[in-house]
Amino acid sequence: MNNILLQKVIKVKAASRLLVKSDTAKKNNALALIATEIQSRRGDLRKANSIDLQNGREKGLSEAFLDRLELTDKRIDGMIKALHDVIALKDPVGEIIGMNTVPSGLRIGQMRMPLGVIAIIFESRPNVCIEVASLTIKSANGVILRGGSDAINSNLELTRIIKSGLKKAGLPEFAVDIVEDTDRESVKELLRMRDYIDVVIPRGGLNLIRFVEENSLIPVIRHDQGICHVFVDEYADLDMALKIAYNAKVQRPAVCNAMETLLVHEKIASGFLPRMKSEYDKVKVELRGCDKTLKILKDIKPATEEDWKTEYLDLILSIRIVDSLDEAIEHINTYSSHHSDAIVTENYTNSQQFLIEVDSAACFVNASTRFTDGNEFGLGAEMGISNQKLHVRGPMGLRELTSAKYIVLGNGQIRT
Amino acid sequence: MNNILLQKVIKVKAASRLLVKSDTAKKNNALALIATEIQSRRGDLRKANSIDLQNGREKGLSEAFLDRLELTDKRIDGMIKALHDVIALKDPVGEIIGMNTVPSGLRIGQMRMPLGVIAIIFESRPNVCIEVASLTIKSANGVILRGGSDAINSNLELTRIIKSGLKKAGLPEFAVDIVEDTDRESVKELLRMRDYIDVVIPRGGLNLIRFVEENSLIPVIRHDQGICHVFVDEYADLDMALKIAYNAKVQRPAVCNAMETLLVHEKIASGFLPRMKSEYDKVKVELRGCDKTLKILKDIKPATEEDWKTEYLDLILSIRIVDSLDEAIEHINTYSSHHSDAIVTENYTNSQQFLIEVDSAACFVNASTRFTDGNEFGLGAEMGISNQKLHVRGPMGLRELTSAKYIVLGNGQIRT
Repeated sequence: MNNILLQKVIKVKAASRLLVKSDTAKKNNALALIATEIQSRRGDLRKANSIDLQNGREKGLSEAFLDRLELTDKRIDGMIKALHDVIALKDPVGEIIGMNTVPSGLRIGQMRMPLGVIAIIFESRPNVCIEVASLTIKSANGVILRGGSDAINSNLELTRIIKSGLKKAGLPEFAVDIVEDTDRESVKELLRMRDYIDVVIPRGGLNLIRFVEENSLIPVIRHDQGICHVFVDEYADLDMALKIAYNAKVQRPAVCNAMETLLVHEKIASGFLPRMKSEYDKVKVELRGCDKTLKILKDIKPATEEDWKTEYLDLILSIRIVDSLDEAIEHINTYSSHHSDAIVTENYTNSQQFLIEVDSAACFVNASTRFTDGNEFGLGAEMGISNQKLHVRGPMGLRELTSAKYIVLGNGQIRT
Repeated sequence: MNNILLQKVIKVKAASRLLVKSDTAKKNNALALIATEIQSRRGDLRKANSIDLQNGREKGLSEAFLDRLELTDKRIDGMIKALHDVIALKDPVGEIIGMNTVPSGLRIGQMRMPLGVIAIIFESRPNVCIEVASLTIKSANGVILRGGSDAINSNLELTRIIKSGLKKAGLPEFAVDIVEDTDRESVKELLRMRDYIDVVIPRGGLNLIRFVEENSLIPVIRHDQGICHVFVDEYADLDMALKIAYNAKVQRPAVCNAMETLLVHEKIASGFLPRMKSEYDKVKVELRGCDKTLKILKDIKPATEEDWKTEYLDLILSIRIVDSLDEAIEHINTYSSHHSDAIVTENYTNSQQFLIEVDSAACFVNASTRFTDGNEFGLGAEMGISNQKLHVRGPMGLRELTSAKYIVLGNGQIRT
């Protein structure tokens, strides 16, 4: 056991217990002070970040990677804004739900309280430190940050800034800490500290998530890939379907709520697909179709079984023609990553069947899958988007960083 | 990979998708038909059970174990009643919560849907098959039962009965199935089938739970031990404290919500403890005290560090005198299994501090910890009592066998 790491985690646990006692004003004040601290230490932060960028260039990291890594002034402003956005959110801690009197005379309800200590394992973007810490501080959780090695100088500086803000606000600075070792071994050790860490959240590629799931003794909230579908029903408003299917694929193809497979009812396929293709052609979307699709769109590539399972994150789209809503739902429940899936239809019964039977975190009628997002859903900031079924499906906001314990108010009741 | 087991699990997954489409009346009808089936096949059931009992006696199993294993007529009646109790419960599937319109004009809410496929790993009591299946059928989940080898004949017969009821009701019989292999290897294989099983619930001793946690790639809901406390505050009504502390220890010591450690404020200890002891003496509770306790109760054993961490499940009690509410909370948050903990006090501020700061699934004021139970809490039947923080704390009822997915109703919205 890595004793230095263990001692750090134990301190975070102790600090998390102190945070529970802090009122909302004090937590908000800490967030405001962190924002001030970012502003006044902007120079140090950019300097730390430039070391990471320099190292990255020497290691030959891709331009896309270096772009994510860079803390531009605009991104630093974004972090300051993110802190103020979280200040504006309602504090979920202490909310009491469902208080009822039961036959024994006990009054029983549930009180939302922090999860405890959260370990978050993430890659590249150093802004994550601030986004995550703002949410965990407000929800009175302790957090252990474990970012990628390429951003370590930026992450360390941001952690110093956060600690300094906490301290100035009179809150325990160890409520937020960072794992300085950036090897996989330290992650493995972290994943075994079940006596002190309550939840692990991996944010990153599938390899990272698999590694965490396979090594963790602590409950994991998976933030996984998005293989999202749009189904154009036989009763769709085809103009609306064109707009939605275009938006879901093209507006920002590299994100998890972008569409990867378009399903089309065979009754409207021959009218719809050529129009759809001419839209996609304008921005050079590569199309791959099932056999039936190839009969309508003759000059596109065939789609293989592998395509249905692929998150392209790019201007590539697989298309399948189905003969019924049932077949569309079957396809989605088989190949979807249970993230976000949409139907376009004007038929009431079909819309309800889709909402009930599609087993995904977000089921849409007549809207683009691109809306799956904490801000768009009205939660404010988010820790990520959960692909699992326990505790939280979809965007994980402040409230999802708490769980509900029972409180029981009696006047001397005993069990007989 | 055990292919027979995998094929079975795949069938349960497919059946669970069919259950989602079934209305409440159909699911209730299945439960009623299972009850009828138990009644008409009582003879077969008792015969199968007698084989298990005979094998158990030959293996030299303890009387307590054989008692738990036996399906007496009273217990069979109990299973029939359990089915009718679940019929009476509100169906949680499809409930829509928090439907709101967001700025984009989308209407967004959350719909409760089944978790999917649940694997339950349990020991001894065959009644668990019916208790569990009634809840999973009503909540439209598929379930894989994996009981102990000593009850295998009873469990197999009960599974046949359940399947027969499902079939007669026109529901998929594979919505409930059982793992026939009773070696640990089959559990290990089950725990890796993450593509088909959504949740694993181990119910049993600490060894079983540790084994499951260490081998599972699937999210686990732990049903763990109960190291429960009662704290008698300096402002307690001491007559009430006597009643509650007696009930929490003595009424049924072998269950998880029984008290294992009594904490007493030093200001009232010398008045309270001798009276308390004379009550415990009547039923021969063995007391073990901290140094301060030993000065008041001179003829009891000393408690060691190990005692604070022990779930006796017996007429044994450790007692510690604390000098403040803070010290009591600190003790509880350090040694409690985060199950059920109580304060006895007439002081408002202390009661609120206890409710907020004690990090347990059920926090009581002025009532016995023995009330932590699905029925007493008004949930009806329960799958068990969760010791973890994600998804559900405390009694896990029908509602906790569902999770909430987002449904998003639009009229052509796209993201810009």
